[in-house]
Amino acid sequence: MTTDEAKTTDALAAAQSATAAVPATPLEAGAAAASDAPAGPSKSELKKRAKEAEKAKKAAERAAREEEERKAREAKESLDNAKQNYGKLPLHQSQERNGRSFLKFNKLSKDLVGQPVIFRARLHNMRPQGAKIVFLTFRQQTHTMQGVLVISGEKDEHQVSKQMLKYAQSIPSESIVLVEGVIKAAEVKSCTIQDAEVQVRKLFTAVEVNELPFSIDDAARPEADFQRMETEDVQFARVSLPTRLDNRVMDLRTPTNQAIFRLQSGVCQLFRDYLNSEGFVEIHSPKLQGAATESGASVFKVQYFNSTAFLAQSPQLAKQMCIAGDMERVYEIAPVFRAEDSNTHRHMTEFVGLDLEMAIEEHYHEVLDVLDNLFLSIFRGLKETFSHEIDVIKKQFPCDDFLFLEKTLRLPFKEGMKMLREAGATDSEGNPIGEMDDMSTENEKLLGRLVREKYHTDYFILDKFPLAIRPFYTMPDAVDSTLSNSYDFFMRGEEILSGAQRIHDADFLVERMKVAGIDPASMQGYLDAFKLGAPPHGGGGIGLERVVMLYLKLGNIRRASLFPRDPKRLAP
Amino acid sequence: MTTDEAKTTDALAAAQSATAAVPATPLEAGAAAASDAPAGPSKSELKKRAKEAEKAKKAAERAAREEEERKAREAKESLDNAKQNYGKLPLHQSQERNGRSFLKFNKLSKDLVGQPVIFRARLHNMRPQGAKIVFLTFRQQTHTMQGVLVISGEKDEHQVSKQMLKYAQSIPSESIVLVEGVIKAAEVKSCTIQDAEVQVRKLFTAVEVNELPFSIDDAARPEADFQRMETEDVQFARVSLPTRLDNRVMDLRTPTNQAIFRLQSGVCQLFRDYLNSEGFVEIHSPKLQGAATESGASVFKVQYFNSTAFLAQSPQLAKQMCIAGDMERVYEIAPVFRAEDSNTHRHMTEFVGLDLEMAIEEHYHEVLDVLDNLFLSIFRGLKETFSHEIDVIKKQFPCDDFLFLEKTLRLPFKEGMKMLREAGATDSEGNPIGEMDDMSTENEKLLGRLVREKYHTDYFILDKFPLAIRPFYTMPDAVDSTLSNSYDFFMRGEEILSGAQRIHDADFLVERMKVAGIDPASMQGYLDAFKLGAPPHGGGGIGLERVVMLYLKLGNIRRASLFPRDPKRLAP
Repeated sequence: MTTDEAKTTDALAAAQSATAAVPATPLEAGAAAASDAPAGPSKSELKKRAKEAEKAKKAAERAAREEEERKAREAKESLDNAKQNYGKLPLHQSQERNGRSFLKFNKLSKDLVGQPVIFRARLHNMRPQGAKIVFLTFRQQTHTMQGVLVISGEKDEHQVSKQMLKYAQSIPSESIVLVEGVIKAAEVKSCTIQDAEVQVRKLFTAVEVNELPFSIDDAARPEADFQRMETEDVQFARVSLPTRLDNRVMDLRTPTNQAIFRLQSGVCQLFRDYLNSEGFVEIHSPKLQGAATESGASVFKVQYFNSTAFLAQSPQLAKQMCIAGDMERVYEIAPVFRAEDSNTHRHMTEFVGLDLEMAIEEHYHEVLDVLDNLFLSIFRGLKETFSHEIDVIKKQFPCDDFLFLEKTLRLPFKEGMKMLREAGATDSEGNPIGEMDDMSTENEKLLGRLVREKYHTDYFILDKFPLAIRPFYTMPDAVDSTLSNSYDFFMRGEEILSGAQRIHDADFLVERMKVAGIDPASMQGYLDAFKLGAPPHGGGGIGLERVVMLYLKLGNIRRASLFPRDPKRLAP
Repeated sequence: MTTDEAKTTDALAAAQSATAAVPATPLEAGAAAASDAPAGPSKSELKKRAKEAEKAKKAAERAAREEEERKAREAKESLDNAKQNYGKLPLHQSQERNGRSFLKFNKLSKDLVGQPVIFRARLHNMRPQGAKIVFLTFRQQTHTMQGVLVISGEKDEHQVSKQMLKYAQSIPSESIVLVEGVIKAAEVKSCTIQDAEVQVRKLFTAVEVNELPFSIDDAARPEADFQRMETEDVQFARVSLPTRLDNRVMDLRTPTNQAIFRLQSGVCQLFRDYLNSEGFVEIHSPKLQGAATESGASVFKVQYFNSTAFLAQSPQLAKQMCIAGDMERVYEIAPVFRAEDSNTHRHMTEFVGLDLEMAIEEHYHEVLDVLDNLFLSIFRGLKETFSHEIDVIKKQFPCDDFLFLEKTLRLPFKEGMKMLREAGATDSEGNPIGEMDDMSTENEKLLGRLVREKYHTDYFILDKFPLAIRPFYTMPDAVDSTLSNSYDFFMRGEEILSGAQRIHDADFLVERMKVAGIDPASMQGYLDAFKLGAPPHGGGGIGLERVVMLYLKLGNIRRASLFPRDPKRLAP
């Protein structure tokens, strides 16, 4: 029940009890006096009774007058000249098409001040002020606009009646409303549109929403709000990540999420724009595989008619086959599947891979250059095109601006290990790390901090990894066979891309498989692709959600995925 | 053995047998004469012998002289001043980076005539002319360029020796070569570059390829070539589709396939460009599902840790959830999976879905307009940007130009059925079709022909399908409840898009589920999305490979898929 509804009801109840306290009509009052006669009352008693009767009569007359007035008023009100201006719409079945232009809040400009508009929006919230005004907040994606509904005296087609005001207050939050009104210049602090509001003339509910799992305001609250609870007399409800994900449709409506997924789509667009300009072709490779393509990592099994298929853990083989098939430069944006029972902030069982592969002429650093320029192009593009979204997200997830250099830092792996050793980093057993050790996640993060301090960048490349810690298909260095032509890219101390020059010679692949303890016969499909002749090539794979998470410092990869999948979550 | 190698070897063999026919030295010849003495020869016999001895001596002298000359010549030749200009390169391990600019044939212009170039290419074929010239055809994707290797007299650094010529003839077709040379103006008929050739100065093999499953020329042959075999004295090898697909890496190298997959990538880019310009956001929805989302069609089961997941048959629910989550307009390009045991020219178990969904204001024809303009934008874009590719493909798959109108034909379903009935179309039992029947694939094709004849278009829309033959979530027409707000799009008589306004009201969805015989409890996840309030919306799904197949009239959907998957094929 809304505040104003409560007031109205209370007034009615008061009127009813007042009516019950006095006889209904003067006639009834007289009859009551007569029935009391037999006991022979005193003069003073009679005088008193006459006085009371007179009083009752007057009260009854007054009550009758009031009742008449009330009825007249109600009758007058029930005429409700505003009836056509509000209410619940029938189910939208495309009944008619008038070709009206619907306002999008993000297109609102000063030119519209004084103009009539029509729009569809969520009713974000509502606040009555006195008996004649209701303030409504309408929401479209990351934008909110104030609406004002004022009872109007005139009886023109734009009349706003008390009933309309009551109706406005009865619409549940999150309902979808259809609004007609006029844009007015205004100063509004509580909305994202702060220099205009809409004077509401018509207000219809298109879709009514009842039970909500949580409010948008609560879901959009920054951590700082909860810290205020320590010192101030405020109380906020915290919406947990699992609750959000269980009710993702609701959660997606927060301005933060609207912005996150626009930015995610921007990363893909910037990825493609840059690679298209570099002569790459987009490919679509099958996710259903007859054999597990990369050994080691776990793979999901699929029941495929009367046999078994596997879900691709990466498009590695497919993109290499395209290179052997003379496609020269290819990229793919597609889901990849990992059947790893990892329950961390940065693992999912399904994520979006941004993969590329290219033939090289002289050196695998041609790939490194393309990848590096690709990332710079993405970072610059996000800054240029998505500053609104980044600002919106920072309100809930404040973070330092993402730092990157004009000329990217390329650190040899050994140099990175040296920096770590000098900073006292140890391996999992507490021993000082060796320069050819694998780099733990913890040490990666430490290196990220060391690099930020020394070079003032959140983005850098580690090149020339030890051969022993890379996949069998990695090309060894031409001079030092303990090193390899491979690299990782880092953002805020976490790996976001892994890549290398690949071995393009079938015989050498067999040799390296044997060293890695892999039976070449088990990967015949992989070898066949190279027997037909593949040019020297290299590439890399990027995790889309990881890039978004790290760029925005969201803290959990699930926040960068529309409907995340992990070992414990398959819905919604 | 190449032709010129054969010649050289024959000459050597002839010289050896000539040497064997006469005594090797004069001394040996004398000894032979002496051992024959005891029988006492006659005078004439002696004279004859002396003559023969003289003859033998002269022959031996001549042989010795020839042998000396041969040795001198060979010694001279084995100096081979061209040795540094040809040969097999060591394994490419990114040994060095000189920053040289490598020529791409598609960037070749008249400006380059007279200029030195370096490039990597496939050796497509080779043809010696006489003993001093070899013509080589180099191939890069859809382009071929003639190379000329001529033995040169001068002893500068660009010398081409006889050995180098021999080496050029020994490189197997499809090997990857590194070529240096000078671009010369020329008239060449046998290559796609017809006004220039490269005079080869250096020729190295980067990757040697031996056994080939078939030749690129055979794989690129149009059907017309095989028809010539009926009337002309020619013989061509036909490469079957299964053989191609088994050796897809090889098959992808044909100019036709290079062009097909560039055009396929173009369709995706045009799809996104148009939708981005219309305010759509790209999404990525999970392919692993906790429940089968659409009943009816078959679904692949995945072993998901200790439970079972399903592969998404479409992003239908996900994109609708995004609309309920206020994303307004979304699209996705991603694999979809169908566990249907259909072995036809147009079914695959995995294909690429181009899906979109959008909120609507007044009418579902807003969706129809977006989809229609989307297709027109794709058709126009293909014509403008991919005319080279279309021309290349038409050489192997000739077809009529794809016809479409400035203003697309929108035919009510009933009108389409009327056209079919008037043309005598029958249902599967041979009865005249009713106006509310489902349309068979055969009748769809017939309608395509009727529409082409009457309206001169290969592209049109059927609107307002009978409700009974559409999925339960289809919105019924506002007036005639036997019709629905749904549509199919057709290209060359085959359906390429199916879509509709969806039911956005949870209660009405339950009602329609019951009518369709679906237990609402089994689709609780679907219903939950609408309980939180979804705006009226509609959308559609397009099969990428189907659009490519029909636009180019390839006849089999597998030709429009890099690595097709069907019930019988899971590799490569």
